[in-house]
Amino acid sequence: MNTTPVRRVTIIGAQSLEETLISETRSLGAKGYTYTVVHGAGARGTRPSNWTGPNGKLEVIANAEVAERILEHVATHYFDKYPLIAYVDEVSVLRPEKYGVD
Amino acid sequence: MNTTPVRRVTIIGAQSLEETLISETRSLGAKGYTYTVVHGAGARGTRPSNWTGPNGKLEVIANAEVAERILEHVATHYFDKYPLIAYVDEVSVLRPEKYGVD
Amino acid sequence: MNTTPVRRVTIIGAQSLEETLISETRSLGAKGYTYTVVHGAGARGTRPSNWTGPNGKLEVIANAEVAERILEHVATHYFDKYPLIAYVDEVSVLRPEKYGVD
Repeated sequence: MNTTPVRRVTIIGAQSLEETLISETRSLGAKGYTYTVVHGAGARGTRPSNWTGPNGKLEVIANAEVAERILEHVATHYFDKYPLIAYVDEVSVLRPEKYGVD
Repeated sequence: MNTTPVRRVTIIGAQSLEETLISETRSLGAKGYTYTVVHGAGARGTRPSNWTGPNGKLEVIANAEVAERILEHVATHYFDKYPLIAYVDEVSVLRPEKYGVD
Repeated sequence: MNTTPVRRVTIIGAQSLEETLISETRSLGAKGYTYTVVHGAGARGTRPSNWTGPNGKLEVIANAEVAERILEHVATHYFDKYPLIAYVDEVSVLRPEKYGVD
């Protein structure tokens, strides 16, 4: 199969942020998302104390430009205020046009 | 630790497809799977309108040949009929023989 | 955004192992984790027969040394006794210091 490498951005944070984050990533160019209920904990002393508990993992597959925009957005608007982590990796998709990749 | 790079195929689609997809990936050579309940949405206008809702993420770790076979299978039998996405990436495993990798 | 490549170790096994594995990965140097309820099945004949059922996926982002330590730990203490799989891949994070990466 002919697959195309694209970016997958993952954001993990409180479930209360789900709708807002989904809406914002759409505004930034994401064509879709996958959301998974998870729980977790982060480095002590560097996150609010309520970090342990129900959280969600938002995954967005996008082209490099949209991925970059999403990372910048969460770094600017969330990192200071919320216990949230964000990372990016690469996956190879079929039908890249579905994710805004030519 | 001595790890071996293998393929991880991910298929995300309606939960109603779970049993069929698991059974078909086994027939195509997969030795196991991991299934996670998720929800999500995709590109508007290019998927059936019921795409938002409970879905599942099926992950299969396999050798390159089996991974290719699974991608071809879902592209041929699912993409026209179901709101389903599929992608592949690489992870490094311990005990590669468990996944059909020499 | 300036991102830094780090290791993500994934361990999938029975939910009953959750607390122990989280505690042990912390002792080995992990700064946090994400835990997802999943289910799955593995190679027949090579795992205990109760492998199908509620399991959990533990993901830990760490530097290379801690990742290696965790893989060695599960290989030494779990592989003979439990139906458990472990693998590692790489993701690129913002704020690498949160994961013990300089």
